[in-house]
Amino acid sequence: MKASNYSINTLKEMPADADIISHQLMIRGGLIRKVASGIYNWLPIGLRVLQKIEHIIRQEMNTAGGLEVTMPVVQPAELWQESGRWAQYDEGMLLKFIDRHQREFCLGPTHEEIITDLAKTELNSHRQLPINFYQIQTKFRDETRPRFGVLRAREFIMKDAYSFHIDQESLEHTYRVMHDTYARILDKMQLTFRAVDADTGNIGGSASMEFHVLADSGEDKIAFSTESKYAANIEMAEALSPPNEVTEIEPIQEIATPNARTIEEVSSYLETPTNRLIKTLIVKGRDTPFVALALRGDHQLNPLKAERIGIVSQPLTMATEEEVLSVCGASIGSIGIVSLNLPVIADRSAAAMRNFICGANKNGYHLTNVNWERDTQYTNVYDLRDVAEGDPSPDGLGKIKFTRGIEVGHIFQLGQKYSKKMNAKVLDAKGISRVMTMGCYGMGVSRLVGAVIEQHHDEKGILWPTIIAPFHIVIIPINAHKSDRVNQVTQEVYAQLIANDIEALLDDREGYRPGVKFMDSELLGIPYRLVISERGLEHNIVEITSRKSGDTRSLPVARATEKIIELVKESLNQ
Amino acid sequence: MKASNYSINTLKEMPADADIISHQLMIRGGLIRKVASGIYNWLPIGLRVLQKIEHIIRQEMNTAGGLEVTMPVVQPAELWQESGRWAQYDEGMLLKFIDRHQREFCLGPTHEEIITDLAKTELNSHRQLPINFYQIQTKFRDETRPRFGVLRAREFIMKDAYSFHIDQESLEHTYRVMHDTYARILDKMQLTFRAVDADTGNIGGSASMEFHVLADSGEDKIAFSTESKYAANIEMAEALSPPNEVTEIEPIQEIATPNARTIEEVSSYLETPTNRLIKTLIVKGRDTPFVALALRGDHQLNPLKAERIGIVSQPLTMATEEEVLSVCGASIGSIGIVSLNLPVIADRSAAAMRNFICGANKNGYHLTNVNWERDTQYTNVYDLRDVAEGDPSPDGLGKIKFTRGIEVGHIFQLGQKYSKKMNAKVLDAKGISRVMTMGCYGMGVSRLVGAVIEQHHDEKGILWPTIIAPFHIVIIPINAHKSDRVNQVTQEVYAQLIANDIEALLDDREGYRPGVKFMDSELLGIPYRLVISERGLEHNIVEITSRKSGDTRSLPVARATEKIIELVKESLNQ
Repeated sequence: MKASNYSINTLKEMPADADIISHQLMIRGGLIRKVASGIYNWLPIGLRVLQKIEHIIRQEMNTAGGLEVTMPVVQPAELWQESGRWAQYDEGMLLKFIDRHQREFCLGPTHEEIITDLAKTELNSHRQLPINFYQIQTKFRDETRPRFGVLRAREFIMKDAYSFHIDQESLEHTYRVMHDTYARILDKMQLTFRAVDADTGNIGGSASMEFHVLADSGEDKIAFSTESKYAANIEMAEALSPPNEVTEIEPIQEIATPNARTIEEVSSYLETPTNRLIKTLIVKGRDTPFVALALRGDHQLNPLKAERIGIVSQPLTMATEEEVLSVCGASIGSIGIVSLNLPVIADRSAAAMRNFICGANKNGYHLTNVNWERDTQYTNVYDLRDVAEGDPSPDGLGKIKFTRGIEVGHIFQLGQKYSKKMNAKVLDAKGISRVMTMGCYGMGVSRLVGAVIEQHHDEKGILWPTIIAPFHIVIIPINAHKSDRVNQVTQEVYAQLIANDIEALLDDREGYRPGVKFMDSELLGIPYRLVISERGLEHNIVEITSRKSGDTRSLPVARATEKIIELVKESLNQ
Repeated sequence: MKASNYSINTLKEMPADADIISHQLMIRGGLIRKVASGIYNWLPIGLRVLQKIEHIIRQEMNTAGGLEVTMPVVQPAELWQESGRWAQYDEGMLLKFIDRHQREFCLGPTHEEIITDLAKTELNSHRQLPINFYQIQTKFRDETRPRFGVLRAREFIMKDAYSFHIDQESLEHTYRVMHDTYARILDKMQLTFRAVDADTGNIGGSASMEFHVLADSGEDKIAFSTESKYAANIEMAEALSPPNEVTEIEPIQEIATPNARTIEEVSSYLETPTNRLIKTLIVKGRDTPFVALALRGDHQLNPLKAERIGIVSQPLTMATEEEVLSVCGASIGSIGIVSLNLPVIADRSAAAMRNFICGANKNGYHLTNVNWERDTQYTNVYDLRDVAEGDPSPDGLGKIKFTRGIEVGHIFQLGQKYSKKMNAKVLDAKGISRVMTMGCYGMGVSRLVGAVIEQHHDEKGILWPTIIAPFHIVIIPINAHKSDRVNQVTQEVYAQLIANDIEALLDDREGYRPGVKFMDSELLGIPYRLVISERGLEHNIVEITSRKSGDTRSLPVARATEKIIELVKESLNQ
């Protein structure tokens, strides 16, 4: 491709509203342009990268036996009503509208309903199973706060796959195949990632794993073990029971804690670390009006874990200030678990404590040296909190550390959530009609472009892995208009590279200084740069520079093409 | 691909709601499935064809210098307000909605606004021109009456391109290149088509051509010459002036025509052919309240032509019955152009008549032997009517005939319609800011699948040109489960074909009789069928059948693969 016939849309200025590096570089490099909040145009260079990622995904999905289909962007309400998600999906992220005949539709954020409805008509025998349909397609989620460019866009490209099975065992097999397929796809793009246990959220099902590309800018916190392969979304990681404390039990005491309302204020006023305190949270109960949750002062409540407790209402709902006052006889800052006429659920760590501090249910007072059994009882002990760094890993090997990740994939064992509601059955080997078991497997295709940049960039710009780089090499002739020789060698090398399927960009733009072309090629992350100059040709050489290492090597003109082909092919297989 | 791992979704029954052959075959063949009115799923086999068509289009667009981009499906209202199309576009075909922040958006039926807005920021010098951006993308038009499957769907896939130029000359060059590119694309798909002069409609601009695939089921009527390359949309074809009639002028007469109101009734009552009558139509005028249009009784008014006349209101509006009565003093069935106090526009053919018949402006009466000048005057003569079969071709060569076509492409010289309104300018060679000149070029990608079938089918099913067939060849082993030899040869041939990039479908479905497999392969239009049977192998042969000709040939087993590769490659290049 000759740059003079192409569209290079780099910007010198840092875009004002781009807050993370991938967003900044995608705007500066002219990969995308904003049309509206969370809605982008993909310019030629960005689209080349996107299509290469699509190609990798398509190849790996086909290898894994996936069958490509295309389902519509616009989906009728009826199917979502059948599955029960029309009213509930993501509280408003479903963009709904009516057509000219006043029928309700939505823009598809996911396609479980459509595919299950399709499977219902197209699949009727166990002999057709297992089957795994996938598509690569535009989706829309009406995000409250789109941000980070393509990482949290409203309109985006996703690969979504849906598998159908006669039983759970078959599902689990395909689930593992998809897990390995995702790992291969991300490996091909040279991404450092973790597959983590995850919540199934509003998609549903019995088990799920998220694939996170590790990056400081990631929106998700991941817990992983320092010693093992264990990794989980923070909200999913189990906090183990610590051993019970063994100190001598001291006499309980009431002490004034004026103006100390938060855990930090009480801790500071009493000159005691926060981990000696127990905080009490009043939430709505399922069968009783309220339930008290007791957690160590330095720990964070995990709402997903709390919701799963039978006596707690779903969704988790905190009591209001007025309710707390009427139930405990004190304001939120001074409540505690002693003489509280409520079921008390203790977090595992809270349950292991002795001589702890908690509110006295009397405004401005706390109790010290409180002890379970002697002073108060818990109804039950559960894992209620988020894990913290330094906790033992749930698999018993090593300690928990945190990292941040960008979720680029999510695979689910859906089970029969959709197939049961929508009555998608096949005949089994005995001729008996059985509800199919399903899996689904999402991957954020456009999001991957941003995720790769988060891991592959330096202060000059992007550092594409060759396999998804918009071009393999940029050729920059120096003063070609003044030198017939430079011009001739340039044209020859360019033609030879193109003939050998090397994606070469010849930067023949007029009126641009070489320095500007160098900066553009660095910003755009083209893996190799070939400089052809009169000075070099005097010594019969051209110069090739690796974008990643920055190393420059001289190549004899006669062997340049051959050497470049070798280098590019090598880096494509890395 | 092995059919046992694939998804073949053929139906025996003719679908009830499919009214044309391509729709029927796409449903029966399992290429698509309806999700809602005008909204379809593309199943694996259909998608393979669609993607091959996309590939051809992409290749040809790239060869023509097009740069691929992707613009969003969801478009903000602001840009459509800027161009002035928000309120007017196709009277309701624009599907509008509001997002969670109450901002107005639409689903893109076309992308002139988005690309012009993009060009405004990305193009600033004449050196970047000409440039031609294209995309292949999902679009949505909220059709009143979606029908004919993918031929008139609401959600569809389109290739749309938009070019930017410094002047009209450059636009005309790219317009010609795109014309030729479209012709090459359609030729590659072995389509019989015509490029016809067309109205620019609600896209606008100064000139446009439609590409029609000829088919009896086509929704558009095309006029073409029996002797030349002339072709035009009926509404666009010029009706030439016939020579003036030269008969002797007869005395005018008023005669009673009781109960004869329509042209046909008057013609039949007077025993005179309809082409001896003039019909008078009263329409609203621009500066006067009304204008009379005079056409020969057998001719049809062409509203587009009438609208273009300065004194006629735009859009063309017929007078109501009451208005006609008050202006002419008679009901619609008896009005005429004699003693009518209105401007009269005569169609060219009407103006050439002598001794004609028209209404007497007196209920139940007509005048015969009316003549221009002696009895009435016209204000002006224009081409007001649709051409009719048998008319002389506007280019003077041959006569007009009609055919029907499916519009699969439409190219436009937009001029400055959008760039002016949206202020999209570049600096020219002298550093002066100039509004860019634009072209746009649409092609219905998903519609092409249906259009190809309309031209390529027989009573057994589809007849795909090999280049877009879902598979090149289907291999049907006979009783492979009973014969090791059949099984072994089948596996060998299949493996060799795959290794040679021949897209072979091995129909290894269990429990299906060969006859059913034969019928499926015919319905699906797979160009070649290879039958491997014990009986054949006894004579050391396998049998290949051409779907198109129906001819079967025996191939020696040892040379089968080689021969098949040769046949497929040959038919790919046809």
